[in-house]
Amino acid sequence: MTLPLKHFFELPEGILYLDGNSLGPLPKGVAEKVQAAVMQEWGETLIGGWNQCGWMAQPGRVGDRVGRLIGAPEGSVVMGDTLSIKVFQALAAALAMRPDRRVILSDTGNFPTDLYMAEGLIALKNAGYTLRTVAPEDVADAIDHQTAAVMLTEVDYRTGRKHDMTEITRRAQDAGAVMIWDLAHSAGALEVDLTAAGCEFAVGCTYKYLNGGPGAPAFIYVRPDLTLKVEPALAGWLGHRAPFDFDPSYTPAPSVERMRVGTPPVLQMTALEEALKLWDDVDMAELRQTSLALSEMFIAEVEAGCPDLQLVSPRDGAQRGSQVSFAFEHGYAAMQALIARGVIGDFRAPDVMRFGFTPLYLDENDVRAAAAILTEVIRDGLWDDPAYQRKGAVT
Amino acid sequence: MTLPLKHFFELPEGILYLDGNSLGPLPKGVAEKVQAAVMQEWGETLIGGWNQCGWMAQPGRVGDRVGRLIGAPEGSVVMGDTLSIKVFQALAAALAMRPDRRVILSDTGNFPTDLYMAEGLIALKNAGYTLRTVAPEDVADAIDHQTAAVMLTEVDYRTGRKHDMTEITRRAQDAGAVMIWDLAHSAGALEVDLTAAGCEFAVGCTYKYLNGGPGAPAFIYVRPDLTLKVEPALAGWLGHRAPFDFDPSYTPAPSVERMRVGTPPVLQMTALEEALKLWDDVDMAELRQTSLALSEMFIAEVEAGCPDLQLVSPRDGAQRGSQVSFAFEHGYAAMQALIARGVIGDFRAPDVMRFGFTPLYLDENDVRAAAAILTEVIRDGLWDDPAYQRKGAVT
Repeated sequence: MTLPLKHFFELPEGILYLDGNSLGPLPKGVAEKVQAAVMQEWGETLIGGWNQCGWMAQPGRVGDRVGRLIGAPEGSVVMGDTLSIKVFQALAAALAMRPDRRVILSDTGNFPTDLYMAEGLIALKNAGYTLRTVAPEDVADAIDHQTAAVMLTEVDYRTGRKHDMTEITRRAQDAGAVMIWDLAHSAGALEVDLTAAGCEFAVGCTYKYLNGGPGAPAFIYVRPDLTLKVEPALAGWLGHRAPFDFDPSYTPAPSVERMRVGTPPVLQMTALEEALKLWDDVDMAELRQTSLALSEMFIAEVEAGCPDLQLVSPRDGAQRGSQVSFAFEHGYAAMQALIARGVIGDFRAPDVMRFGFTPLYLDENDVRAAAAILTEVIRDGLWDDPAYQRKGAVT
Repeated sequence: MTLPLKHFFELPEGILYLDGNSLGPLPKGVAEKVQAAVMQEWGETLIGGWNQCGWMAQPGRVGDRVGRLIGAPEGSVVMGDTLSIKVFQALAAALAMRPDRRVILSDTGNFPTDLYMAEGLIALKNAGYTLRTVAPEDVADAIDHQTAAVMLTEVDYRTGRKHDMTEITRRAQDAGAVMIWDLAHSAGALEVDLTAAGCEFAVGCTYKYLNGGPGAPAFIYVRPDLTLKVEPALAGWLGHRAPFDFDPSYTPAPSVERMRVGTPPVLQMTALEEALKLWDDVDMAELRQTSLALSEMFIAEVEAGCPDLQLVSPRDGAQRGSQVSFAFEHGYAAMQALIARGVIGDFRAPDVMRFGFTPLYLDENDVRAAAAILTEVIRDGLWDDPAYQRKGAVT
């Protein structure tokens, strides 16, 4: 492999896409596979597709593909639903494993839906649970013998700050807490080794760095020794041991398939399954090193030209995911100007401009060009200049 | 409109498809729309698709389309997730509305996942709840002042038996219970008027009679006067009042959008949205009458030729949905023989052969041909005759 792998993607002309941390671009081959799933599979095999086209086995099969990217063994990851639902499943299972504890610990940088799902679960259980959030750097010390579960996103969606997965997992488990990692900004972005980390659960989405498409299904990992102990809170029929026995009582499948809920979204699964194939050619260590090099080049060039921008991402690459964020008072307008010039990043309230560095389809020239446009916008105060925006894409 | 509307569907040659109650066939135009969603929307607008292509508003927009088919006003239905998840949401909300009651009442003919999701919710709440199931005909009399929620599927997936939605809703509400209807085998199959029925919640799937494709998203209806009272148990970020404020605390949207959870499956939503357009041309009363006429013709022809088959569906059309089921000891093998001859129905353990009558793409000739093949298989004992199966499709 030699990065980048631009030829694997359908990238529009004139676009520098620094937002793969929000929605990955379309990999080549996906459109054809989805079309075949619609026309040949659904259209011609009809109900027979569930077996003949492998639709029923797809969530496990695709889960194994995701597992290979995050250090999870075969049979420990299954796809389905959305990340919010998977957070709920993992957290409900974790609380059931620590019935005498009442605190869920997270951090203030966690993605809001993770916190919301915890709030909802707490209300549902109505048994004195508390969601405690502390600053990211205070998490490890906040874990104590009241902590039932530690629920964190490895890479902060806003700042790119990266937790030490191994160390926090160890601290959680030393205190008897269950560890749940959300890999939304990790899977496909950096090296993850769930087996080495030893966490009980992990969840993530596939529409960011894994390029599965808008609304691609989520994943959940259950540590293999726990599989048969997890009682699914969302006890859907496709998590049943024998769904087509139509047993009136629920018996969970003797595998990670018990974390399945309802009928899987076949068209989305098909897009994702095809999108994941390109990872066969990727060395994750090389990807990570290249991403850091691109990020550092971007930081250096932007800081040289724009002293008004404040880097809100950690300066040390080892403490950062695959994205770089700058705070800027007029960040929203500036991002609109950048987008008008073909540099696609995104904005996160109140003032964060966020840029993702995915070496699958970005190289040094792209990063230099993006930094130059950002510098121009900020240095020359062009964020609210319609004439500048009308100049259109830069490349 | 004149039924059938076969020209609206991509139906394979040589197939008599009597399984639209399991997975509807591919409507024309869907493949092109999905292809455009992949190539133009995802491929070219990338992250911009959420606003520019209307992806973010799609679950509500499509919900309104479904709502028109089930007597639900605008803004009372929203799409997302799977039916299992929607059952969970409705049931959790219902229990919260009756905090002093501890019984969920359902029937033994309910689809298993509805019962499983109730079991899971009960375990999660761990507060003395009970799931009570009685025979379908005993439901109305089993409702009492302990009943928090009555949760029923209007049309029995196995027998086609149809509940009296208005009467049972009235009985439930007279006893102070909350009524939840699962419309899996109703939406697009028969006339449903949720407003007239007055039930609090309804849920359903869209891959059966609504032809949304394999894994198409589910829907949930909340009676408009309750919208602002429902506390979502699955408190996902897209149900938040302002998801992009990234508020650390959850505040539900002031609309049925609060029942949204995570990122919607855009490709599936697009397939469904296109598939729903054909309903603009359908008169539901005519559809229902035609479905009953086709069903009765099928019953008459099959019973005349196959006295060994036992009709397990109600004989009275008014008490039946859009499907007809026969019990037969060798039902599994017989269904395989039928499928080999191009007559696609399905089998539900232990001994039920199930046939759906969807006048959108079936006419009297189709039904006569299907009945003739079924008669041949049963009368001549051909269900395990490989030579017969090798004859291939009948039409």
